[in-house]
Amino acid sequence: MIYKILIANRGEIAVRIVRACKDLHIKNVAIYTEPDKDSLHVKVADEAYEIGKDPIKGYLDAARIVEVAKACGADAIHPGYGFLSENYEFAKMVEDAGLTFIGPKSEVILKMGNKNIARNLMHKNGIPVVPGTEALNKESIETIKLEAEKIGYPVILKASGGGGGRGIREVWDPKDLESSYESCKREAKAFFNNDEVFMEKLIVKPRHIEFQILGDNYGNLIHLCERDCSIQRRHQKVIEIAPCPTISEDLRKRMGVAAVAAAKAVGYTNAGTIEFLLDDYNNFYFMEMNTRIQVEHGVTEEIVGVDLISRQIRIASGEILDIDQTEVKPQGVAIEARITAENVWKNFAPSPGKITGYFPALGPGVRVDSHMYQGYSIPPFYDSLVAKLIVKARSYDLAVSKLERALDEFTIEGVRTTLPFLLAISKRRHFRRGFFDTSYIEERLQDILENTHDHNQENKEEVIAAITAAIQKVKSSRENG
Amino acid sequence: MIYKILIANRGEIAVRIVRACKDLHIKNVAIYTEPDKDSLHVKVADEAYEIGKDPIKGYLDAARIVEVAKACGADAIHPGYGFLSENYEFAKMVEDAGLTFIGPKSEVILKMGNKNIARNLMHKNGIPVVPGTEALNKESIETIKLEAEKIGYPVILKASGGGGGRGIREVWDPKDLESSYESCKREAKAFFNNDEVFMEKLIVKPRHIEFQILGDNYGNLIHLCERDCSIQRRHQKVIEIAPCPTISEDLRKRMGVAAVAAAKAVGYTNAGTIEFLLDDYNNFYFMEMNTRIQVEHGVTEEIVGVDLISRQIRIASGEILDIDQTEVKPQGVAIEARITAENVWKNFAPSPGKITGYFPALGPGVRVDSHMYQGYSIPPFYDSLVAKLIVKARSYDLAVSKLERALDEFTIEGVRTTLPFLLAISKRRHFRRGFFDTSYIEERLQDILENTHDHNQENKEEVIAAITAAIQKVKSSRENG
Repeated sequence: MIYKILIANRGEIAVRIVRACKDLHIKNVAIYTEPDKDSLHVKVADEAYEIGKDPIKGYLDAARIVEVAKACGADAIHPGYGFLSENYEFAKMVEDAGLTFIGPKSEVILKMGNKNIARNLMHKNGIPVVPGTEALNKESIETIKLEAEKIGYPVILKASGGGGGRGIREVWDPKDLESSYESCKREAKAFFNNDEVFMEKLIVKPRHIEFQILGDNYGNLIHLCERDCSIQRRHQKVIEIAPCPTISEDLRKRMGVAAVAAAKAVGYTNAGTIEFLLDDYNNFYFMEMNTRIQVEHGVTEEIVGVDLISRQIRIASGEILDIDQTEVKPQGVAIEARITAENVWKNFAPSPGKITGYFPALGPGVRVDSHMYQGYSIPPFYDSLVAKLIVKARSYDLAVSKLERALDEFTIEGVRTTLPFLLAISKRRHFRRGFFDTSYIEERLQDILENTHDHNQENKEEVIAAITAAIQKVKSSRENG
Repeated sequence: MIYKILIANRGEIAVRIVRACKDLHIKNVAIYTEPDKDSLHVKVADEAYEIGKDPIKGYLDAARIVEVAKACGADAIHPGYGFLSENYEFAKMVEDAGLTFIGPKSEVILKMGNKNIARNLMHKNGIPVVPGTEALNKESIETIKLEAEKIGYPVILKASGGGGGRGIREVWDPKDLESSYESCKREAKAFFNNDEVFMEKLIVKPRHIEFQILGDNYGNLIHLCERDCSIQRRHQKVIEIAPCPTISEDLRKRMGVAAVAAAKAVGYTNAGTIEFLLDDYNNFYFMEMNTRIQVEHGVTEEIVGVDLISRQIRIASGEILDIDQTEVKPQGVAIEARITAENVWKNFAPSPGKITGYFPALGPGVRVDSHMYQGYSIPPFYDSLVAKLIVKARSYDLAVSKLERALDEFTIEGVRTTLPFLLAISKRRHFRRGFFDTSYIEERLQDILENTHDHNQENKEEVIAAITAAIQKVKSSRENG
């Protein structure tokens, strides 16, 4: 069994990993940069080491992190999500240092990191992918135009090396194809130093459905049901639900089989996620694989009764996976709301600062994963996630009611948060019925904002300006769309 | 469906009931006495009304509470636990006022409130009861001595009208029988105005195993598995576990059948608990029925996925119970630790005062039911329970590890609490293996105290005095026992 784990991360996921270590009686080590010294992950870990003055750089300094791990006697590293978690060079460096990387093998991270390679690999293994082309760089613009006609508009251009929403162009009108292609290539070159671009059919208003995968080092691999992550804002997930409240048992089964096949095709080990897009006709398409733990893993844990971080550690320790696919029987419905320190009235601008009052929602069916505490100052340098509120009930509608209750109860004073915005969503009729796709928030942002009642709201003008801006945006996107 | 519920209670259970009401979108009303005006149940309820200046009396003023319920338009009253929850006159008054009492019918409360009546009723219905006598008051002391010989020493004398640990005498030696009988009668007369006494075999070092019952108004009645509440101190439960970590599936089934038969014998409706004693030879005996929700109901909720307070409300509303006994399949193990504001170093004396720092344990598998918040002043007038920490994991040993982690993480500053004492128990080998009975704490109090590390500990002398007293107590009980 692993003896001591260095956690190469910060914030709530670092706290989450410390808790898993303690539950397993495994020693745990936090790292932090100087501005993060008061962070909860530093306080709760058995040991903590500073890795630099710059707020960010230390968390990305692979060599330094491996060095600290070796120096403090850690025999494994958990990368969390973000930062170095999907950096195959880091995973390789950890492996080469004789330490255990808690995640898949580095070569799997490398393979799944290239969108075009991953897509082709899936296609070859019978996993549905969005209809599209190979890399286009050697083709003439005439050929590209013909390909687009064959696929059918709207299409989407994607950089093979892309990620994080960069190197992507939607094309709705043939007249825009050439200019979009050129600008996509330029952006791909600038951001990823690789101007390879390919084209796919644009799936309009899909649902985002992803499957949690868990595999051991001996070829045992299962899925732990799906999460519906369609409630997004600007490609960032806002609310996640497990299982999806509206797909049929038959579709769930078919998607699950595809997800397991996809993971097996790359010899996947440890925890990972296969993301699919689901269109209006219940066609599903492989989108990408995330080769790490996801922010929203908690909703899966709640419905299947499996602690995913503990399982990651146990699998990395060489344990055999003792859960058979037939034993995975989800119970009830779990919903996660990501609470961020943002000012919804200022276009969701980050709202760092000191937390003067903190009362997490508690009680039955409520779980809070967070690194906040009263008196903590949220630094301005990091992701604005402050807490993940996870509720669970016997059915989707009961879970939504519990979400509403818990959001209402949750109190964070001193900074602006998305709590009132999330509460407004939880009360909406279509959300309560499970009727939504990835365009849900964007299409009704104005209306959600009008129903967002921020008790800490200081400035009415802000509110009016935000709603006016939302109206303008909807108008202009309708004119363009 | 019930429209508005008045909660005739305070503290954590009142908060718990408010949360259940909100989850069901039912209006909820708190009541409070003047010293309780800053209590969380007052803050979270939709409405709140003061019912007097005296700290306690208002919560016991049945007529006033019914009056407030009618005045504010409530159509139901939830009594919680303690206070008026097992007072059949209160239940009757609520019924007579045309309101719904969220609990069983008043006549059932009356029947089960008399220990001797309940015992005889159970015996007639084939439920095992501890071997013993009928009421002894008409018998000569010689007959009583013969009865004791027949039963076999040690025996226990009990007041029929007793409760709360009063009107009870253990008799280990025949020479003490007469004097114990006389003093038991005197105490019974003084406390319950009824000197009726009966005798039972004393079950030595039993386990306390209780079954959660749920029945609707149409004769559907099931049990929701058992809780092991053997970890007690002075007949007060300290740690509760569901399911019991050591009983066999066969015994569980037999006890469950008996529990359902016991509840059906009195035409029980709503939530209730059948308490059994389990001896060294796996014989179980009906002890008593609690005709209300119990403090420790949360551990059952966690393993069977049923919200008991919501179910109480829905059953009282006239809903049919849609869970069949065969569908009750416990998943995992849940453990509750009762955190009280007590100074373990001063013989567990209450430690009221202002909470200057409060950080409840959070994260996966952790639930906190509490009415605490930072800045709250715990009044000196009430039960010293400040929080129920409930953990859940896939197995008993994982749940104990999680309990240990969560107790370590839980921070309450400003008052003394039993957190370090509970933490010391969670680390003990016998506890981790599930080897314990109702004498567990008492027999090793000295050793537990020696391993209790209170970071807020102010006075080393206190600690030494407490341990010395514990040693003395063990010695004298050995000499007597």
